[in-house]
Amino acid sequence: MDLYQYITPERWERFKRFSDKLETPFLVIDLDIIRAKYAELRKYLPYGQIYYAVKANPHPEVIALLRDLGSNFDIASVYELDKVMALGVTPDRVSYGNTIKKEAHVRYAYEKGVRLFATDSHADLINIANQAPGSKVFIRLSVEGSQSADWPLSRKFGCHPDMAFDLAIKAQKLGLVPFGVSFHVGSQQRDIGIWDDAIAKARYLFSALKHDKGIALQMINLGGGLPASYIQPTQPVAEYAAEITRYLKEDFGEEMPQIFIEPGRSMAAEAGILVSEVVLISKKTTNATVRWIYTDVGKFGGLIETLDESIKYPLYTEQTGKVGPVILAGPTCDSMDIMYEDFKYDLPQDITIGDRIYWFTTGAYTTSYSSIEFNGFPPLTAHILK
Amino acid sequence: MDLYQYITPERWERFKRFSDKLETPFLVIDLDIIRAKYAELRKYLPYGQIYYAVKANPHPEVIALLRDLGSNFDIASVYELDKVMALGVTPDRVSYGNTIKKEAHVRYAYEKGVRLFATDSHADLINIANQAPGSKVFIRLSVEGSQSADWPLSRKFGCHPDMAFDLAIKAQKLGLVPFGVSFHVGSQQRDIGIWDDAIAKARYLFSALKHDKGIALQMINLGGGLPASYIQPTQPVAEYAAEITRYLKEDFGEEMPQIFIEPGRSMAAEAGILVSEVVLISKKTTNATVRWIYTDVGKFGGLIETLDESIKYPLYTEQTGKVGPVILAGPTCDSMDIMYEDFKYDLPQDITIGDRIYWFTTGAYTTSYSSIEFNGFPPLTAHILK
Repeated sequence: MDLYQYITPERWERFKRFSDKLETPFLVIDLDIIRAKYAELRKYLPYGQIYYAVKANPHPEVIALLRDLGSNFDIASVYELDKVMALGVTPDRVSYGNTIKKEAHVRYAYEKGVRLFATDSHADLINIANQAPGSKVFIRLSVEGSQSADWPLSRKFGCHPDMAFDLAIKAQKLGLVPFGVSFHVGSQQRDIGIWDDAIAKARYLFSALKHDKGIALQMINLGGGLPASYIQPTQPVAEYAAEITRYLKEDFGEEMPQIFIEPGRSMAAEAGILVSEVVLISKKTTNATVRWIYTDVGKFGGLIETLDESIKYPLYTEQTGKVGPVILAGPTCDSMDIMYEDFKYDLPQDITIGDRIYWFTTGAYTTSYSSIEFNGFPPLTAHILK
Repeated sequence: MDLYQYITPERWERFKRFSDKLETPFLVIDLDIIRAKYAELRKYLPYGQIYYAVKANPHPEVIALLRDLGSNFDIASVYELDKVMALGVTPDRVSYGNTIKKEAHVRYAYEKGVRLFATDSHADLINIANQAPGSKVFIRLSVEGSQSADWPLSRKFGCHPDMAFDLAIKAQKLGLVPFGVSFHVGSQQRDIGIWDDAIAKARYLFSALKHDKGIALQMINLGGGLPASYIQPTQPVAEYAAEITRYLKEDFGEEMPQIFIEPGRSMAAEAGILVSEVVLISKKTTNATVRWIYTDVGKFGGLIETLDESIKYPLYTEQTGKVGPVILAGPTCDSMDIMYEDFKYDLPQDITIGDRIYWFTTGAYTTSYSSIEFNGFPPLTAHILK
């Protein structure tokens, strides 16, 4: 097992004992690994206030663990708010990070006690002022970074710094607290330098607002974007943290603002192993060289991030013979349900129907993203290893 | 209301009365339209035995209606089998159309009484012979057609006619009944001529098996692929039916085999209207010309077929002023949750937050494909108009 840094031989043993008798497909989440990831982030970014991005993995056990570890929570909807509050998270530990919010939902969150909201548009800001008076707002900046993130995030969200400047002024006029700025460099961002540009933009905005308008922003929300271990190599978290810290010091020196960070993928992904079974192996013509391997998990049953073959999970099988190229597809009648066709995984030649394929780093954006009954198949379920 | 052929003024009135007070987002399925679509298909393809593709819309009321109308059912999984049988459909009306099947699932279907299975590979055929002895099998041919289908289906499924030839012989040796062939030209196939090629392939296979091996196939399953009304114009069903009938007569003359047809989209899509609300309208820069309109339904909340902007639904709003281009996105924090960005819909300039956007032709591949809790948002629900 040199596949994967967090899966120690002991953890693998424990996982195997737990999972061998269960019927596939399913996800196993090892809470030990989430503990380790949380500790790692605390160690390398000690000044950062962690807001776990609930959407990455909203399993109650994951939320409960992070609640006990002292994490705060970044929510994308009032449904996630209900979920974390039902688990005893107090509203002062919640940030409503979605810039797209219905009036009724802002009001609901406010009534529940939430006082911290993301925004990136005039209409949303007015909405917050009306429904959540006096709250803190942070303004999401658009940043470049799509090209180097496996799952880009920058197009849909964020605004230009000039607009952010206007929004901060308007927030104050509307009786809100212009609290800070946020950006999100893209999920699974592999280019550390992207943070440099984003932090510089924030610095510019801090200075301009202070100098021109006397508005003192207090916080930078670095968003998510720290990578997890898929098949492409990435730097360790320590490396990211050191660089980000250097950028912050260069730009802010002694006037360091509060730093929030919203890990989702980097907290949960590596804690998950998805276990699937080979349902069918076929060749499309009698002399085809590439095998089609159909597994009982598919793109719409938990692997939606294989869209455009964006995220490439490390795969493991227990067969050890000579390998050859395969196309990997799911069990449904939908032709879009092909995980990897352009990119060819090499799997053992002697893998056969009924054998298991283990998908590592599947703890984030899998279960909650699976379809409710695509072709009748039930959504992916998760088991917890405590 | 000249938008849409099946939505008569009466049906629109009824729909509005029913839906105006409901909280968005939701889908309304008008069973009257499914009745009309079923009757239309019976009329224009009277010799076709209809196997409704349950995956398109597995709502119990839809299944129950089609059960009462006399339809058979094409299932993609044992879960769909359970669903139709729970509604009183007998197993002789069921075809197990998925060529990717676990042993246990073939056995389960066989024990429930299913005797008709699709196949396209040696391994699956052996599986059927072992778990469902004596059953009828039909062999799925791969056909060309991806280029002209909005939602292509041909890559993942089907085999070359040479392999189909071998499979038919093998089926007989294994004690199965080589019953026929099937193909699927791709969902929402707009090029009628594609059926010509596919039927010619079937003809070749019928002749070769009869001539060389004395095997008499009895059935051609034309699959799905009949289009529904999205924004691109298509021929009416009557036109497709006439052409398909002509191809069949040309190729088979007096020796016409049994004809099965598996409408899914063409049966259910036009019966659905998805009702959403504008959550936010924003511009990314102060002088942007294109508005971003965020609705409370998104790609992962029912509109998965907007992937790659494949399916373009007709949209309707009640505002009637001057129109302008928009980017349409969903309510979640995921940047992939953008429905239309390259293709620009024109929506009224005076549309505002809280206004409704009606998505027509959304009765197929919406509710069942939505995510279980993407960003916490609940799956799309459906209401039935009887």
